[in-house]
Amino acid sequence: MADQPVADETAIPVVIPRRLDPEDAQLALQELQAILKRQEVVDALAQRQHEDEDEDGSNLLEGMLQRQHEDEIRQIVNALHPADIAFILESLPVQQRQAVWQLVSQEHDADVLLEVEDWVRESLIESMDHEDLIAATGAMDADEIADLAPDLPPDVIAEVQKGLTDAERAQLIAAMGYPEDTVGAIMDFDMVRVREDVTLEVVLRYLRRLHELPDHTDQIFVVDRADQLRGTLSLSRLLLSEPDTLVSAVMEPDVLSLNPMDPDIDAANAFERYDLVSAPVVDEQGRLIGRVTIDEVVDVLQEDSHEQELSRAGLQEEDIFAPVLAALRNRAPWLLVNLCTASIASFVASRFEDTVSHIVILAFLMSIVAGIGGNSGNQTMTMIIRAMATGRVTGANITQLVKRELQVTFLVGACGSLVAATFAWMISGSYAVAGVMMAAMVGNMLIGAALGVLIPLLRDRFGKDPAVGSSVLLTFATDSLGFFLFLGLATLFLL
Amino acid sequence: MADQPVADETAIPVVIPRRLDPEDAQLALQELQAILKRQEVVDALAQRQHEDEDEDGSNLLEGMLQRQHEDEIRQIVNALHPADIAFILESLPVQQRQAVWQLVSQEHDADVLLEVEDWVRESLIESMDHEDLIAATGAMDADEIADLAPDLPPDVIAEVQKGLTDAERAQLIAAMGYPEDTVGAIMDFDMVRVREDVTLEVVLRYLRRLHELPDHTDQIFVVDRADQLRGTLSLSRLLLSEPDTLVSAVMEPDVLSLNPMDPDIDAANAFERYDLVSAPVVDEQGRLIGRVTIDEVVDVLQEDSHEQELSRAGLQEEDIFAPVLAALRNRAPWLLVNLCTASIASFVASRFEDTVSHIVILAFLMSIVAGIGGNSGNQTMTMIIRAMATGRVTGANITQLVKRELQVTFLVGACGSLVAATFAWMISGSYAVAGVMMAAMVGNMLIGAALGVLIPLLRDRFGKDPAVGSSVLLTFATDSLGFFLFLGLATLFLL
Repeated sequence: MADQPVADETAIPVVIPRRLDPEDAQLALQELQAILKRQEVVDALAQRQHEDEDEDGSNLLEGMLQRQHEDEIRQIVNALHPADIAFILESLPVQQRQAVWQLVSQEHDADVLLEVEDWVRESLIESMDHEDLIAATGAMDADEIADLAPDLPPDVIAEVQKGLTDAERAQLIAAMGYPEDTVGAIMDFDMVRVREDVTLEVVLRYLRRLHELPDHTDQIFVVDRADQLRGTLSLSRLLLSEPDTLVSAVMEPDVLSLNPMDPDIDAANAFERYDLVSAPVVDEQGRLIGRVTIDEVVDVLQEDSHEQELSRAGLQEEDIFAPVLAALRNRAPWLLVNLCTASIASFVASRFEDTVSHIVILAFLMSIVAGIGGNSGNQTMTMIIRAMATGRVTGANITQLVKRELQVTFLVGACGSLVAATFAWMISGSYAVAGVMMAAMVGNMLIGAALGVLIPLLRDRFGKDPAVGSSVLLTFATDSLGFFLFLGLATLFLL
Repeated sequence: MADQPVADETAIPVVIPRRLDPEDAQLALQELQAILKRQEVVDALAQRQHEDEDEDGSNLLEGMLQRQHEDEIRQIVNALHPADIAFILESLPVQQRQAVWQLVSQEHDADVLLEVEDWVRESLIESMDHEDLIAATGAMDADEIADLAPDLPPDVIAEVQKGLTDAERAQLIAAMGYPEDTVGAIMDFDMVRVREDVTLEVVLRYLRRLHELPDHTDQIFVVDRADQLRGTLSLSRLLLSEPDTLVSAVMEPDVLSLNPMDPDIDAANAFERYDLVSAPVVDEQGRLIGRVTIDEVVDVLQEDSHEQELSRAGLQEEDIFAPVLAALRNRAPWLLVNLCTASIASFVASRFEDTVSHIVILAFLMSIVAGIGGNSGNQTMTMIIRAMATGRVTGANITQLVKRELQVTFLVGACGSLVAATFAWMISGSYAVAGVMMAAMVGNMLIGAALGVLIPLLRDRFGKDPAVGSSVLLTFATDSLGFFLFLGLATLFLL
């Protein structure tokens, strides 16, 4: 960079360039938090002063400080990319979030609203007045308005609709009609169509008149008069071929086309497998009605994996600063279910009170048998759910998979139960207890493996997502049956 | 489609078009499995015949059938996209996989090898001879060879190196040197560079001479004489601007540039946040050395989420048809760790043998207290790990988060423990037992919440991935402390 001219230091105030770097956003967040903390101190002092003096005279300094803080925040926030502003808003508690949101310049409003997660958007829209909302949504495309629609007040939607062309209004209504988690809900209507019987030169002239291509345009779509999709023309083909070539000569006729009612995750997996950047969406009659782009697909994949991560702990996406009561609603149901299953399992065990009262040491060993069965079954279940998600489990290989899982589990169980039996012998001093421990452990691990295959298969057969709830059911079974097996064997052989 | 000409039915044999559709691949897999099953029957019959008759005469029919089956397989498999072929190979047991792989036409070899998962690639390379491997890798780029290098025999790598230019050889050596999980390991060297002081017309002429652009080229890179990155020029800007414009006038100077030693997941998150399709990679001196594309990023994101999913059950990616012993190595360690922690927890509990022998019903309640603490702590931990992964946890809000988690947990615990106390009263008939149950449960849930925050924070502070191993540690603590708390309180108040 040595040969660059030295910047003139008397020039206009420094404009912070909008850098694309998540680390910058992280630093900006920390600066903002420091400023907000200083403002809190000012507020607290002012509060105390009011109480002490009961007068309004010293508001001057307070107001000055507040304006200074606001200026600082405005400068930091508005220099960021809208996606970074969204990140910052997501990372602040509701009150601070709304305070910062007021300072975000209006030009970013639309982009930020589209970027933030659902649970934050609500609190942002709440703090905006009618005019702000109209201004922000007025610049959006139909599919973007549709994304926001559930959170917008009805009068705003009504007024925004008035500003749309008939075609856009039809698109908005269509987009609002597609269920969540379908291709229709993530597609946009922003695409370039051309005919196959024109030359590339004509296409190029047409594109230049557009002034701008939609984001993520890696290909344009070739349609006939009835809007039937005939193929796609990639921008690189368009750039590299001779201008007098016909579109039909260089277009790709075999393309993945999606249906608006396809599950979005299927479309996302197709993008992943075929390394796509965009794909056309056609209706039942083969007419081109929209397109899906890779940025939406990445969001679908990430959201899907986050949802699974959370649902495994019985949670939904939650504002980490949401009121305590909202969090309660999120967490209690799953814990209650677990509490009930644990109670039933312990009720099963309590039927052997007599046995346990004779050989108390069994009480401390039984939870090992139950736990290891659950852990082992969970491994099997994770493998099977993964294999099912990738489409690798078919009718033809399922018996083979089950046989293999049982073999593996038996082997692991045989080794593990030697360790467990040794431990049982050490704390009980009885070979008989150790033997029962061994048998019950291998038995419960086999139960876990069998259920680890069966539960996801059955849930899938009946059309439910195989991941959700499966682990609760599995743990319930391995706990109850583990207790039953261990204490039952003990009752038979040790009393 | 009514106005299309009807296909001439006397024409050349039907060529199955290469459709991009994961469902087609799924169907192809099922067809293949059926054919392979038929072949197995033929093999078994032939085997029995050999044993019975001990002669070689009837090999004719057998050979004919086998050739027919091979033709069928060849036709199905080679009509698929290489990514679908990879999917099919991943879905077959080793022997069948290698048999089908022999029938994949050589032109797909390179693409399929690059597409398949690591645990399958090994078994494919094993079944290829030296010439096949040279042919397949000869057509690859330096970064692709580097991806395969760990699985290739050294003599193949040596021979392939001979076919490379000096520049390519330097790239190959560089690419092989970057650690896994860094940007360097996913970048490619396939990109177009231009100078900023030329017109777009010059750029267009230069591109036409290339005949083909690298995959996922949404932008070309602008560099100076010293190869320093000055900015990027998007294909759509190039297409839409007047040909006599200078590159410097329409290029984007503020771009995200990556460093080859950055963690790949950081780069992936930046792609996700800023909706990128490609990004330049520069070295410490600001020189452009490669680029990362969205297809690699999607793979990184997916692999990361799959790894996390598996690691939560103590697993690594495993060939679902791997030999039983390989599976044993994958699964045993984690189960053994769990077995040990469970044994220690039950050893802790066994110190209260005297208490339990007096009030046997405690034996059946203690596992409820331990379990619910683990479940609740797991919810907290999942929330915190998620918030940490998105960068939302900073020094400024950590106290607030901890306070909130403890509040939520206390509330959930208070409600839940009422249910648990009722159950305890029902099976014990004692208010005292119910009271101890309540206190122990709330206490253990608070322990779980505190550890659910602390464990990921500490692991992160010491530079370890916060997800792995955290749940084992948490369960160990809530089990041991749950037993201790419950039986300890019972000893104090009930004896």
